[in-house]
Order: sequence, then C-alpha cells, then structure tokens
Amino acid sequence: MAYRLVLVRHGESTWNQENRFTGWTDVPLAAKGVEEAKEGGQLLREQNFQFDTVHSSVLKRAIQTMNIVCSEIDQEYLPVNKHWRLNERHYGGLQGLNKSETAALHGEEQVLIWRRSYDIPPPSLEVTDQRHPSHEAKYKGLPVDILPKTECLKDCIERVLPYWYDHIAPDILSGKRVLIVAHGNSLRGLVKHLDKMTEDAILKLNIPTGIPLVYELDNNLQPVRHYYLADDETVRKRIEAVANQGKAKPA
Amino acid sequence: MAYRLVLVRHGESTWNQENRFTGWTDVPLAAKGVEEAKEGGQLLREQNFQFDTVHSSVLKRAIQTMNIVCSEIDQEYLPVNKHWRLNERHYGGLQGLNKSETAALHGEEQVLIWRRSYDIPPPSLEVTDQRHPSHEAKYKGLPVDILPKTECLKDCIERVLPYWYDHIAPDILSGKRVLIVAHGNSLRGLVKHLDKMTEDAILKLNIPTGIPLVYELDNNLQPVRHYYLADDETVRKRIEAVANQGKAKPA
Repeated sequence: MAYRLVLVRHGESTWNQENRFTGWTDVPLAAKGVEEAKEGGQLLREQNFQFDTVHSSVLKRAIQTMNIVCSEIDQEYLPVNKHWRLNERHYGGLQGLNKSETAALHGEEQVLIWRRSYDIPPPSLEVTDQRHPSHEAKYKGLPVDILPKTECLKDCIERVLPYWYDHIAPDILSGKRVLIVAHGNSLRGLVKHLDKMTEDAILKLNIPTGIPLVYELDNNLQPVRHYYLADDETVRKRIEAVANQGKAKPA
Repeated sequence: MAYRLVLVRHGESTWNQENRFTGWTDVPLAAKGVEEAKEGGQLLREQNFQFDTVHSSVLKRAIQTMNIVCSEIDQEYLPVNKHWRLNERHYGGLQGLNKSETAALHGEEQVLIWRRSYDIPPPSLEVTDQRHPSHEAKYKGLPVDILPKTECLKDCIERVLPYWYDHIAPDILSGKRVLIVAHGNSLRGLVKHLDKMTEDAILKLNIPTGIPLVYELDNNLQPVRHYYLADDETVRKRIEAVANQGKAKPA
C-alpha cells in the first residue's frame, strides 16, 4: 500500500437516544457516545496510529468525537479541518421529529423509504423554517442556494465528493496521514466512492459507530483492502444497533 | 471601536500543581484548569460573545482550554488554528525540574532572574536532549534552526509577533471576531505589542488564568480599551495565584 486512511463514525447522540431524526440538528454526544469515542481512540492508540491532519463535519457530535479521539491518541496538536460537506445527511422536514411519531404519521414503510432509498428525499424545508441551515451562525458565510432544504442519500454523497477531491485526496497524495471523523451517511459517500459500490450496496451498508475503519490505498487512491480495528463480533453488534435505528418503537 | 479581540490564558496544568517548569512540555490541564476553562467559557456565554475563528498554541493545555471554551459558548464549529508560535515560553534546561529543586540548586534569586528578566534565557538545551522540540512529532515539519533550545521573554515575544502580523491581525482586519487561547508569556507578547508596554511593565504584568481579556481596537488595531470579564476581586486573586508560581516552597 502507498497510503492509509482512517474513518471514524461518531457514536450515540442525545437525539439517537430519543429516536429523533437528527440530520443537521447540532446535538451533543450522549454519555454512551463519549465512551464510544474513547474506545475508538484507544483502538487507534493500541495500534500506534499517527496522523498529520484531521477532517470533520461542523456538527458537534463529530467534533466532540474528534477531540476525544485526538486526546486518546495524544495528538491534540493535529491541524483540524471542519467542513459542512462532511455533515450528516439533511433530513429536511423530518428533522426534530421522533422517529416513532414519524412512523405512526407516515407509516413505517414510508419512513424506511426516506431513510433507505437512494434518491427519494424527505419533505423539503422552507427557507423561512428555523430548521433551515441559513438560520445558523455556522453557515453564515455560505450562499443560501448551496444549503440543503432536504437530502436523499444521493444528494448527500454528491455534496461530500467535492470535499474528497479538493481537500482530503490532496492531503493524502501529499503524504499526510489522514483521519476523518464524520457521520453515517457522509462516510457512506466516501466508502461508496472508494469501493465503487452500487446504489443498492451502499444502501445496505451500515458503518458501525466508534470503530476505526482503515483503508489501505494504492498510488492512485484505489483501495487495496479495508478493515475495522475490532473483532467481528464487536463490529456485528455495532452494525446491528445502528441498523435498528429508525424502526418505530412501541412507546 | 472597530474590532474586538478576546484572549484567554489556560488554567492550571498537572505540572503547575507539581510546581515544575513546564514551557513546551505537553502536559494536560489539571481538574482545576478544566474548571477555569469552563468558567471562562461561561463568562463569554453570559455576555453572548460570538466568534468567527480561534487561534491557539499546539500545546494540549491550551487546546483543551479552547475546546472547553468553544463547547461552553456552543461554538464547537469554529475554525481552529493551532500554531507553535503561540506556545508558552521555552524554559530550556529548566523544563521538567521542580521549581523548588531549581531554587534550591541555583538559588531563588537566579530562578527569579530567569523567570522575570526580559533578556536572560535559562540554560540552553542540546539538540540531542529529548526535551528539545525536534524530538516531537508535532514539530517535525519545521527546520531545526527555528526551534528554541531555550527562551527569555524577549525571544518568546519576538517569535509570537510574526503570528500576530501574518495570521491574527489579518483575520481581525478582514472582520473576523477572533478568540486566542494561549499561555502566560505568549499572551504577554501580544499585550506588550498592543499596549506598547515597556520591558519593565510587561515583566510585572501577570495575566490571570481562565478570565477572558477583552480588547477593543480601532481601525488600525490600536487599543481603545481593555477589560477582564470578571470583577476586580476575582481578577486580583487569580493574578496573585500565578504571580506566586515559581517561588520555592518549603516541601
């Protein structure tokens, strides 16, 4: 291999616990998510991973995870790049709704379509809706027309890729050892691109939280192999936990 | 005023507690330092301070303070700039020594000269000394001749100023609201420069830890006024605490 790239998906947030559609809503990690971040950092530390730069979204659950991981590997000094293109998929009009309520309202099947289809976005937000990103300070330097009102997985992946080509890939090709801390769907975008996965395959892929995913890449950034820094059983349990998100709960 | 700039000095580290010369040694915050950072963030939050960018050193006690402050003010998303020029003064051959031991060895008077004189540096490190910055991953991109073997306050201030002129001042002049989280002596460099203080005056200035220091600046970045975000008694006590550092203790 010529290069190595590490991806970490943030762990449980307070809204995961409440079973709400989160998307771009900027909620903090839950205590369990803090633990997942620490464990992820410890796994990297045990294998003596060294990095030269870190990329994350601008959402605090990813940033907190990044800070915890950098602390666990004793590399707080790393240059940090935060960008909205690594944000979670925007869930439009579903954001803030309890997933059980949404399922009760629209039917579990429709919810699964919105969550699991490649190109069918949830209901769109009005720009005047306080949930639209233009109302937040963190996006104030951006033209309103680039800010999503909703996103299907396809939309999310398409806005992640310019960040891969313009920032991450050049970092890797310049010899920097890169860590990326982001979200289930923005990481799906990177994984789909790297592994040339079909739409159907990426829909079925659930990346486990908090477990570093290591890609070994050749000179042209083509994957030689990838692996998780944990045993199969741990990976399986984490995948199961995230795959179960969004199913309506009895209460 | 045209611009506003906020400085925060990190709070107590584990080596402050042990009364050791720290300098560039990368020790974490003590529990008390974590509390000081939280309090500093809360003071900024109460006054509704908003920032556009943050600058810190590459030392974890400043970075941890910055992360805590950004979390307290709910602005984790801020772009972060970490640079060695904002590091604490390098204490050369004194780094790692217990301050009482140093005082017992060299005499309290000599220690005070090294700590309090403007242009007399402590004993210089050999490049082969493991305490020399060239042995640390965080400085590996830098030519060895720019890395300090020791520093007097004058040296520290002189290497801080290029960062002011090249990064901080342009940020402010472009309209960004800037937060700086750094160390006693690197902040002294900025304060001396801003307030055009004499060498003698800056030697006598002790910046309190954890209390935001607000500068209001005119169009030419000349200070209109400055103030601490705390009452006089709180400021006085914190100054007293840091002024007492380095005096030999009975045990």
